[in-house]
Amino acid sequence: MKTVQYILKRLEELGVEHFFGHIGKYNLNIINEIESNPAIQWINCTNVQNSVFASDGYARIKGFGAFVTSYGSQELNTLSAITGSMEENIPIICISGIQNSVKCDDNSIEIFKKIVPSYALLTKDNAKLEIDRVLKTFVKERKPVYIAVPENLTDYELADRDITYDWLSDDNVLEETVSNIIEKIKSSAKPSVLCGSLIKRFSSIVEYKEFVEKSAIPVLSLRSGINITNADLPAYLGLYTSENEYIKLTDLCIVIGALQKELNEIQNIKNQIIISGNYTVVDGKKYEIKMSELLNSLTKTIEFRRFEYNKTINELKPFKSSSEKISAESLCSRIQEYIIGNDIIISDSIIMQKCFENLKLPSSTNVESYNDNNGWATPAGFGANIAKQNARVIIITDSDSHIVSGMELGTIIKNGLKPIIIVIKKLLSEFDLPDVNFTKFARVFNGDIWSTQVETSEDFDKALKVTQIMNKMCYIEVCMECQDKIIQEKSFNETFVTETKDEKITNINLDKISLTSPISGNKYETTVHKVYDTTEEI
Amino acid sequence: MKTVQYILKRLEELGVEHFFGHIGKYNLNIINEIESNPAIQWINCTNVQNSVFASDGYARIKGFGAFVTSYGSQELNTLSAITGSMEENIPIICISGIQNSVKCDDNSIEIFKKIVPSYALLTKDNAKLEIDRVLKTFVKERKPVYIAVPENLTDYELADRDITYDWLSDDNVLEETVSNIIEKIKSSAKPSVLCGSLIKRFSSIVEYKEFVEKSAIPVLSLRSGINITNADLPAYLGLYTSENEYIKLTDLCIVIGALQKELNEIQNIKNQIIISGNYTVVDGKKYEIKMSELLNSLTKTIEFRRFEYNKTINELKPFKSSSEKISAESLCSRIQEYIIGNDIIISDSIIMQKCFENLKLPSSTNVESYNDNNGWATPAGFGANIAKQNARVIIITDSDSHIVSGMELGTIIKNGLKPIIIVIKKLLSEFDLPDVNFTKFARVFNGDIWSTQVETSEDFDKALKVTQIMNKMCYIEVCMECQDKIIQEKSFNETFVTETKDEKITNINLDKISLTSPISGNKYETTVHKVYDTTEEI
Repeated sequence: MKTVQYILKRLEELGVEHFFGHIGKYNLNIINEIESNPAIQWINCTNVQNSVFASDGYARIKGFGAFVTSYGSQELNTLSAITGSMEENIPIICISGIQNSVKCDDNSIEIFKKIVPSYALLTKDNAKLEIDRVLKTFVKERKPVYIAVPENLTDYELADRDITYDWLSDDNVLEETVSNIIEKIKSSAKPSVLCGSLIKRFSSIVEYKEFVEKSAIPVLSLRSGINITNADLPAYLGLYTSENEYIKLTDLCIVIGALQKELNEIQNIKNQIIISGNYTVVDGKKYEIKMSELLNSLTKTIEFRRFEYNKTINELKPFKSSSEKISAESLCSRIQEYIIGNDIIISDSIIMQKCFENLKLPSSTNVESYNDNNGWATPAGFGANIAKQNARVIIITDSDSHIVSGMELGTIIKNGLKPIIIVIKKLLSEFDLPDVNFTKFARVFNGDIWSTQVETSEDFDKALKVTQIMNKMCYIEVCMECQDKIIQEKSFNETFVTETKDEKITNINLDKISLTSPISGNKYETTVHKVYDTTEEI
Repeated sequence: MKTVQYILKRLEELGVEHFFGHIGKYNLNIINEIESNPAIQWINCTNVQNSVFASDGYARIKGFGAFVTSYGSQELNTLSAITGSMEENIPIICISGIQNSVKCDDNSIEIFKKIVPSYALLTKDNAKLEIDRVLKTFVKERKPVYIAVPENLTDYELADRDITYDWLSDDNVLEETVSNIIEKIKSSAKPSVLCGSLIKRFSSIVEYKEFVEKSAIPVLSLRSGINITNADLPAYLGLYTSENEYIKLTDLCIVIGALQKELNEIQNIKNQIIISGNYTVVDGKKYEIKMSELLNSLTKTIEFRRFEYNKTINELKPFKSSSEKISAESLCSRIQEYIIGNDIIISDSIIMQKCFENLKLPSSTNVESYNDNNGWATPAGFGANIAKQNARVIIITDSDSHIVSGMELGTIIKNGLKPIIIVIKKLLSEFDLPDVNFTKFARVFNGDIWSTQVETSEDFDKALKVTQIMNKMCYIEVCMECQDKIIQEKSFNETFVTETKDEKITNINLDKISLTSPISGNKYETTVHKVYDTTEEI
């Protein structure tokens, strides 16, 4: 079995069926190997950074992701995005094609060593061992890793043999840790739980939910942990802030699945138990235990107790349609109504991030929100949609991010996907970006897409309703303080009529839509139906 | 004087009047300082990579360039582009705003250390010395350099004092080197000159031209040195290839201004004299001498000699208009006719690169060609045009590069520039990119731009003529093997009429254009006039 085939097979076993990337000087061998394997698919992005973002979005949904790059400027172009995936603890593997002459003290290799927890430059002598080593770290830590494949090694023969990833927590260590934690909870007057995204990354959602339900310990969500905890849980106290009254008085804080940067931010909270994916820290002592096993054992042992707390979650006001310019709150409350179970929300919108605190969403909705890396949401949403093609993926992004990676729309269209994309055009500042008409932009790709520009809550409401009957990709440009001349000249309806090729929509209400055919002139009504599969369980 | 003001003043003295960049978390102090200085201008690009490319294009025209970035993902996003500027030996300075807590062993700082020849992390103790040290390397080596400015240091007071950059070659060393080289030339039967782009970077074009004219030594151009040597020079033998008959027999090769990567490529040529910007190597010995001073002295000393050589430059066939699909050769021969003196050509087109070998251009035309970094030409052309706003800048790019950085069109429009942009849409391969209608894309920015799509040499010819009368940015999408449905449905004239808001062009010939006003219906003729200032000398 060829070296590259070996890597691909092991990744396929981890559920990686799509490989993102961009053709480069030294990766054609690798791409050809992917293309010739019917079980997996090569996805060519418009640039390398977008391919990293896409694999990040894919990994958030499917567990693991992969992208292919090429030595030199391409490779360097992936660094910023990989650093983002490191911060967010997303398992993506970088497979880089390199020249045969590159040595392990090469600058580019040295740079990657500084960024990822595990990397390998393959040689004939080390290939099998190094691939296995890197993949074991990949699975254990769920972080980005890097394998450099010299051109003359892609065809090198390796013996095919499975890798054993799984390890179980040592029973004695597990027992000791569980009894320690249970003791601490018992002697605590005001215990608290903070939850973060590693609960998702380490496939421990069910175990987590059972633990917080049974224990009834008050829970707050870290930013990365949005919508992991059921919003209906009585003891759910909303998003964590250092000002929270309960947290100020907590005498035991059980931090489950926090990102490293979140751990840094909450350092001042005393008496923490840190439960991470593959280790737990109690009283400064680190135990090698799997999160899912620990939570499972804790749930079995813990007894229900009643805690006192004040619950003051600011819920969004119900959406009201109006002809005034849309406000951030109005935008969010309408989006809250729009979102249904099993939706996947990929958002890097700063405007939305503030509202996510107050959004009440179905528990089966997966929210992935990250806004430290401009350009993330559009390609990440694409990757998420590739990972789950029958899900409704809603990409919510700001114009300054979308301007960086918007060209990936073309790849989304080319792959026949139908996400809902909401681009929030922000206030123009003195350092403003060029004036892009995104609605027009969405139509420069030769493909089927419905796009519109709105500036009032009334029109946003209508546009979201339209997305429910359009069996195609829908794109809404929301001008929050729109200085765009075009929108001033045209009313929504006028814009709208132009865009709907098949039918002219004359009236919209929640249940029925009246349509007039521009060809026959016939009028007919249709009920709003959902075109996405929303029956599948997570 | 504040630290940042000090840096900006020193750069202004080097001719840097525009600072490219993108707003980030830690660079607002720096940007505010630029904005409040009436002598310089802040140019906000759509993303950081484009701002590096723009400063690279700016430096190629103006001598030096600068961009502002911010610690973290932004900074990492500049690395690939900076590495490109390193390879090309382009002096751009990276001014990075960072948090106060970042130490000099930080990963990000360590990575930059590996890439640029001079970097500094400023502290109160070292600020003045470090800035001066970095700027001296900047001027001496003409390569990218990096200064990190912690937020609490932007306002820190420094004494204003000029930096002395200039050094003259030591007279004795200069004399010794000159006589060595002259001796070698005298005793050589077949000396040769290879020229590269450092002749431009180290402002030695005049000295170089005088040397090759007076010495009459046969000259070949390296790829980076395109159009530096006057194409009419009798002893100019065209672009260097290892197959060149004269080079195969040369017994002394004087390499003037080659890039490091070019020096690596020509290692097999024996008996080289390497004349670089600030040093010269003769017989393996390195002398610290300025290129301009050395060439000047050589010209004074050297005597004219007659050399024997065969000159076989493949000139392009004259352009012929036809209704067939445009070929690469036809494209190039038409572009050759189109280019006039003082034009600035910024190209990353691989199709054009092959033709540049045979292009015969006016000697005052500046060709900057680089295609190792996807996305370079559009923002680099923008930067070049900012550097010389009354010049005609022609950007020639391929679709796969333009798809990476095309959004910068918006910034070009916002800054009121009027370059000519030619986007060559390449053959669709099995790894093809999304199908973008670039002609439509150019119109999504709210601004004045004329764009058209052509697929025959006849239509390309017409389109170039139109650019000569349009006093606005012109954008031509050339489909070399066009699979775009739109072009198949529409003839050029139809597309064309749609685009011309003011007049309907009914007939075009080289001297006159007949126009019909769509409002009055009046017909009138106008002679083709050039709207660009082409009188200025380089």
